[in-house]
Amino acid sequence: MAVEFIDLRAIFLRTKKGIHEFMGILQPRIENAKDDHERLYYHHIFEEEEQRLDRLNALLPTLDYYIDNEDGRNSTNFQFVRLLQDISLEKFGLHNFLEHLDLALFSFIDPEHQDKLTKMRNITADDYQTIKVILNSLNENFDGVANAAGSIPTDEKEDVDASLKIDKYTSVTPKQGEAIQSPKEKIKTTKRLTVGSLKETKEVM
Amino acid sequence: MAVEFIDLRAIFLRTKKGIHEFMGILQPRIENAKDDHERLYYHHIFEEEEQRLDRLNALLPTLDYYIDNEDGRNSTNFQFVRLLQDISLEKFGLHNFLEHLDLALFSFIDPEHQDKLTKMRNITADDYQTIKVILNSLNENFDGVANAAGSIPTDEKEDVDASLKIDKYTSVTPKQGEAIQSPKEKIKTTKRLTVGSLKETKEVM
Repeated sequence: MAVEFIDLRAIFLRTKKGIHEFMGILQPRIENAKDDHERLYYHHIFEEEEQRLDRLNALLPTLDYYIDNEDGRNSTNFQFVRLLQDISLEKFGLHNFLEHLDLALFSFIDPEHQDKLTKMRNITADDYQTIKVILNSLNENFDGVANAAGSIPTDEKEDVDASLKIDKYTSVTPKQGEAIQSPKEKIKTTKRLTVGSLKETKEVM
Repeated sequence: MAVEFIDLRAIFLRTKKGIHEFMGILQPRIENAKDDHERLYYHHIFEEEEQRLDRLNALLPTLDYYIDNEDGRNSTNFQFVRLLQDISLEKFGLHNFLEHLDLALFSFIDPEHQDKLTKMRNITADDYQTIKVILNSLNENFDGVANAAGSIPTDEKEDVDASLKIDKYTSVTPKQGEAIQSPKEKIKTTKRLTVGSLKETKEVM
């Protein structure tokens, strides 16, 4: 169990580095925007990622605490349950970051930015697949309390029409160097978080 | 105190209506997008507002509970503290919605959409000013526990350079038909949540 929390910390530290790098890319676009629309657009994405950074900075000390204190890790400990639910929201945050990076790839078209943004989006895509597997495991070990409202992207909702989704986000891509369950095993063993995405995958593929 | 929670419920029900209306405006743009970039852009904003809707739907029953149960309203009740912190995050959510609507005003330029979006953005701007005043009051009454990481927009942060902010979001606009404290009173009586914005207002004006 502790190993999953250590993996989560590694993911959050990695994405924090990504946020700082991404904010550095956005900043000159905000400051040198050609009009109010462009300025608002880049400011808006910058602000959302800065907010995610604030959330991660608040979450990490609690995560570290429960890495060191196994006794508190149970589904009746309100603070621990809140941590699990906050982690679930940061799962959505990683998906959202992936979309911010993919949007940026359309507007930062010089080779240097393309290379930097592509590396960041691939790392984020891998980390997103990993955090989903970890959350399924945490839900199985802690009575499903990690499920939080607002943790499932539109792309993975079973009750949303495929016409509103983006295909590449509805399909599950195995993380390199990480043992990922096959879809069949997933459907058998996991909770709502990924079953939705797998069903959608069938619909849109 | 109860009246503030009733006002919050009214704000959240109003913004839920706004989310549904906004999603209805975005949906045809997603479905009829001219290319992948446009489709991802509208999908992305749709998904963020749908997530906010999920969060509000989860928050409202707890808010209703504490409207009916005054006894539980204290800064040592973990569930109540979490409610206050979730409300603080929804303050950021309202600011974010305001930016989504202002972005939409640049791209939905026909008179009908302009009229509908302008009405929604003005209601949202008023509700945002109101929720800030309510949160300051809640923080004063409950030992500041309503302060949550990720509740302060870049526009209102004191440690962020004005070159990264949007002027109209850093200034405090009085809410129509609502008695709002003067900036002077605000600086005297309120906590960080709005002091920052007022300081920024001076810097950028």
